[in-house]
Amino acid sequence: MAAMSYPLLEKINSPADLRRLPRTELVKLAGELRAYVLDSVSKTGGHLGSNLGTVELTVALHYVFNTPHDRLVWDVGHQTYPHKVLTGRREQMSSLRQLGGISGFPRRDESEYDTFGTGHSSTSISAAHGMAMAAKIKGEDRKAVAIIGDGSMTAGMAFEALNNAGVSHGGLLGDVLVILNDNDMSISPPVGALNKYLARLMSGKFYATARESAKSVLKNTPLYEVARRFEEHAKGMVVPGTIFEEFGFNYVGPIDGHDLESLIPTLENLRGKKGPQFLHIVTKKGAGYKLAEADPVKYHAASGKFDPAIGFVKPATPPKTTFTQIFGEWLCDMAEQDQRLVGITPAMREGSGMVEFHKRFPTRYHDVGIAEQHSVTFAAGLACEGLKPVVAIYSTFLQRAYDQMVHDVAIQNLAVVFALDRAGLVGADGATHAGNYDIAYTRCIPNMAILTPADENECRQALFTAFRHEGPVTVRYPRGAGAGVAVEKQMTAQPWGKGEIRREAGKNGGNRGSGPRIAILAFGTVLYPALEAADRLDATVANMRFVKPLDHELVAELARSHDALVTVEEGCVMGGAGSAVLESLQAAGLNVPVLVLGLPDEFVEHGDPAKLMALCGLDAAGIEQSILKRFGARPSLVRPAANQ
Amino acid sequence: MAAMSYPLLEKINSPADLRRLPRTELVKLAGELRAYVLDSVSKTGGHLGSNLGTVELTVALHYVFNTPHDRLVWDVGHQTYPHKVLTGRREQMSSLRQLGGISGFPRRDESEYDTFGTGHSSTSISAAHGMAMAAKIKGEDRKAVAIIGDGSMTAGMAFEALNNAGVSHGGLLGDVLVILNDNDMSISPPVGALNKYLARLMSGKFYATARESAKSVLKNTPLYEVARRFEEHAKGMVVPGTIFEEFGFNYVGPIDGHDLESLIPTLENLRGKKGPQFLHIVTKKGAGYKLAEADPVKYHAASGKFDPAIGFVKPATPPKTTFTQIFGEWLCDMAEQDQRLVGITPAMREGSGMVEFHKRFPTRYHDVGIAEQHSVTFAAGLACEGLKPVVAIYSTFLQRAYDQMVHDVAIQNLAVVFALDRAGLVGADGATHAGNYDIAYTRCIPNMAILTPADENECRQALFTAFRHEGPVTVRYPRGAGAGVAVEKQMTAQPWGKGEIRREAGKNGGNRGSGPRIAILAFGTVLYPALEAADRLDATVANMRFVKPLDHELVAELARSHDALVTVEEGCVMGGAGSAVLESLQAAGLNVPVLVLGLPDEFVEHGDPAKLMALCGLDAAGIEQSILKRFGARPSLVRPAANQ
Repeated sequence: MAAMSYPLLEKINSPADLRRLPRTELVKLAGELRAYVLDSVSKTGGHLGSNLGTVELTVALHYVFNTPHDRLVWDVGHQTYPHKVLTGRREQMSSLRQLGGISGFPRRDESEYDTFGTGHSSTSISAAHGMAMAAKIKGEDRKAVAIIGDGSMTAGMAFEALNNAGVSHGGLLGDVLVILNDNDMSISPPVGALNKYLARLMSGKFYATARESAKSVLKNTPLYEVARRFEEHAKGMVVPGTIFEEFGFNYVGPIDGHDLESLIPTLENLRGKKGPQFLHIVTKKGAGYKLAEADPVKYHAASGKFDPAIGFVKPATPPKTTFTQIFGEWLCDMAEQDQRLVGITPAMREGSGMVEFHKRFPTRYHDVGIAEQHSVTFAAGLACEGLKPVVAIYSTFLQRAYDQMVHDVAIQNLAVVFALDRAGLVGADGATHAGNYDIAYTRCIPNMAILTPADENECRQALFTAFRHEGPVTVRYPRGAGAGVAVEKQMTAQPWGKGEIRREAGKNGGNRGSGPRIAILAFGTVLYPALEAADRLDATVANMRFVKPLDHELVAELARSHDALVTVEEGCVMGGAGSAVLESLQAAGLNVPVLVLGLPDEFVEHGDPAKLMALCGLDAAGIEQSILKRFGARPSLVRPAANQ
Repeated sequence: MAAMSYPLLEKINSPADLRRLPRTELVKLAGELRAYVLDSVSKTGGHLGSNLGTVELTVALHYVFNTPHDRLVWDVGHQTYPHKVLTGRREQMSSLRQLGGISGFPRRDESEYDTFGTGHSSTSISAAHGMAMAAKIKGEDRKAVAIIGDGSMTAGMAFEALNNAGVSHGGLLGDVLVILNDNDMSISPPVGALNKYLARLMSGKFYATARESAKSVLKNTPLYEVARRFEEHAKGMVVPGTIFEEFGFNYVGPIDGHDLESLIPTLENLRGKKGPQFLHIVTKKGAGYKLAEADPVKYHAASGKFDPAIGFVKPATPPKTTFTQIFGEWLCDMAEQDQRLVGITPAMREGSGMVEFHKRFPTRYHDVGIAEQHSVTFAAGLACEGLKPVVAIYSTFLQRAYDQMVHDVAIQNLAVVFALDRAGLVGADGATHAGNYDIAYTRCIPNMAILTPADENECRQALFTAFRHEGPVTVRYPRGAGAGVAVEKQMTAQPWGKGEIRREAGKNGGNRGSGPRIAILAFGTVLYPALEAADRLDATVANMRFVKPLDHELVAELARSHDALVTVEEGCVMGGAGSAVLESLQAAGLNVPVLVLGLPDEFVEHGDPAKLMALCGLDAAGIEQSILKRFGARPSLVRPAANQ
């Protein structure tokens, strides 16, 4: 593709520059902006369809509103590339989602135009309502605008926010504008009643239904003709408003979200209005890029570089099998064996590897939309009736259903399998999507079990083991591929709560015969770098497999037969698997030095997954270095002064 | 009050008995049931108003539906006393909410009629949808009924469930009936747009608004008279349905929920219908008991025995000041000092001690309804604008907003104070409401701070300290009263991240001069039983105050100067404050025996708070016993075999 030129866009270094353009230039600017975003994403990878869909909206918002004084809150935030380009980050787009570069989501510490960091969906109305209410409390004249997709609107918290933002509090009513960006598509195809409702709104059938229902009653009465005439004149007036009006908002729309001639006057009009406003716009994901328009699911995001003229192509060498695929295959195989299995996803059919399962088992596949809370309690309801629900959910999104996991599943000790994808660091998505906390936040819940398979085959067998368990259980596995271990088709249950020794110090021709005897207890895929480090240190390595129930016998045995223990996990150190080992040792009255390796107590930013693991010291070299630093030639068995 | 007689009720030992009664007897039975429930609660304490409000509904449901084959899911579940009486637990009502007695909520392990355990609100539609869908998958003919209050309906997860239950999945549409029990009252007075909407539905203004809007347009046109006549005939037909119909439900109502003559035929009619049904009934909290009808907030629940003829009376000796009151007073004082303070509660104005604050600072008081998720992100929005939100929330309900705490508050390091009431065991409410996990699930989040004040005065000072902190922080305090320490009006910031020595071994005339030197590290109100135990053991005691940031220096100092450490907290052992101490010791390379005392890895049932604390070994005697058992005369400094 020839190098593009962006004569207008190059002059826009802030929204103030944009607002100096004559309105007649805006369509041209939007064209350049769209081309720039496409070109930029084709070089860095990242979200595509949603950004192409919000080009005109972004131009219009910054043109009409006095940003950053007025606050824009972008829901999810993966559609903010045009916003980043217009707010002084045009040149930085080449560093998007890379270590040290700009984030793929809005971030308060990146720009004053990023008023609220997002990543997870459906937070924007709550945040904007907070900002609008703060302006009222402080006596400032300021608009807060939430831009939210139709998919995000299905999450309960968006409803909670609507329920609050539409009414006054202590006599104060916030000047909040909610823009529903309706593209009939979140990441997976849309589901649920709200979506159908929005479709009716868009097609005008909303009104038609009301008319038809009246007509059918009046048919063959003298009033019929009267009603017909009445209807023609009063259309759109006699019917009560949309559900958004029921919630206290002034509803405007639907309008074409790609038509600046509609968008700008409408936004100008709404800017002048007080109180809660609701604008319904219709956009097309991937707008202006034919390939993306034709297949919005595929073009949701680019995993890496691509040629815009050709589109996404399958790599010549097939990529390594991911844990997501392992899960997807297991789910189909398990469903075939066991009629009780029901698969549930909160709007992540593709991301969770459930496309094939959906195709083959349509009545046992439930995409509940972006509704994590409901997904888990719905699963609990199924489990009460003897079915075997498998909830496929990213570690980071399970945070949304934490109470449901405690209150509806664990207290009742129901057999629900949580398949936790993206557990641990997530690379380019960064801190908002990190699955660093699930071990800590599930371990403390009674009745919960936690399995941490070490590789592809273990993942399949762990899922099978979890499925046979008569209680709640999580199986956590990371984003991407593992060590590449061949998967046995045969499913074999792993011994419950038991780890295994994978390497014994002194037996593998190690090179540190005189050093301290060290045992590494690995939880999950970090087993492989741990084995590498152990080869160099001649350490024992255990593949622990279970965080809970922990293999206390193995822990005690290793503590007794070694000078020091090292725990490794791709999860936060605080309260994690290493912590479980410390608790186990103390409960057994065993005092042995333990080095706890895992993710630090800070939010880990976006970047290349391998680099991030190295930065956190969880690659083989990092593990080796940490062990040497702590234990040196001999473990430093520091005793309290009193015991020396 | 004279002993009542219950000639009909005494014959009802299961719903089958009820269904054998002639319909003409049901009003009499309902009268007996109401009297029985009132009499019973007056002897045991417990929820009152909601149970008096659901007497007729409960009779009608068990009369019409084939329970337990048909599933009843009671939202929240504190309104299930009539249900318990009719399902074979009449005699057990005297043991309600007591140790070993029946629960105040439905429980699957208590009765086959309790199809789903509840306690937290808004889970019923999700669970019932799961059950209805399971029946379809299994090919069983079965109804699932969710009974949900208007307060519970404001929570996002109820909306998520409606959004799913109203549409088919894989061609399956569940036979679910949602009964909205509209009593215009959750626990605090109602808030939000949905409530206003329901009020409009009830008053018929829903239709009126539509008419008025049409009329104002048509006025002075020839169509006006036509429209008027049309309206008279088509009323209720031309308007599209309620929002519940928009979600795919067949809406019926509102009907009087105390009128069995309406309830039974309506339920019979709905029983015969396939697909999602929605029945809107109107009841009165406290119905049939004049005192409760007049003041539903006061008569929501009885804290203990009372004489029904007199009602709730203030105890002659004023009860001890609770932590809730300490919080409420601090909130008012702080708000007076600092204009930036905004107080937020998710529907717990009374429970969180915010009645006075609401009165004095109406524009800075926000009751968002049962909407924990929104409450936290709304607070984040306020904090972005420089205000200082204080979210008052029970420990157990913060579980509902876990992701919002991580994603919207902690990642952005926003200064939000979480005042966690009911942290630890909660007595009669039992496992569903236990605040046992907050230390573990907040400790793993970067940027979070956790304060555990030990008594009333510390609570006030900790809240002040937290309020001055420029980041997210929880202050956790238990249900009820503390040690009774006088509260200083003056607010003084505690040294950040620092504990204090409250007792030094060997300096207080202890009686174990020759024993091992033990230091107890207490987190929170367990400081006082720890001090008692320490007096008997002559142990050192530290009031740690902070779980995070932990006072690593103090931990190390105590480890170096003692033979063994003991940690105590009213929170789960797994991943809790004790675990933080273990991590700290290992990070410092200190090996010292540590006994970790806290709540066990099991759900603790309902019962008297003091007895429960004793059962968990967290009273003074329990702490002493555990220490003696573990360390005896000298700490058992077990070394790994290799070091001996």
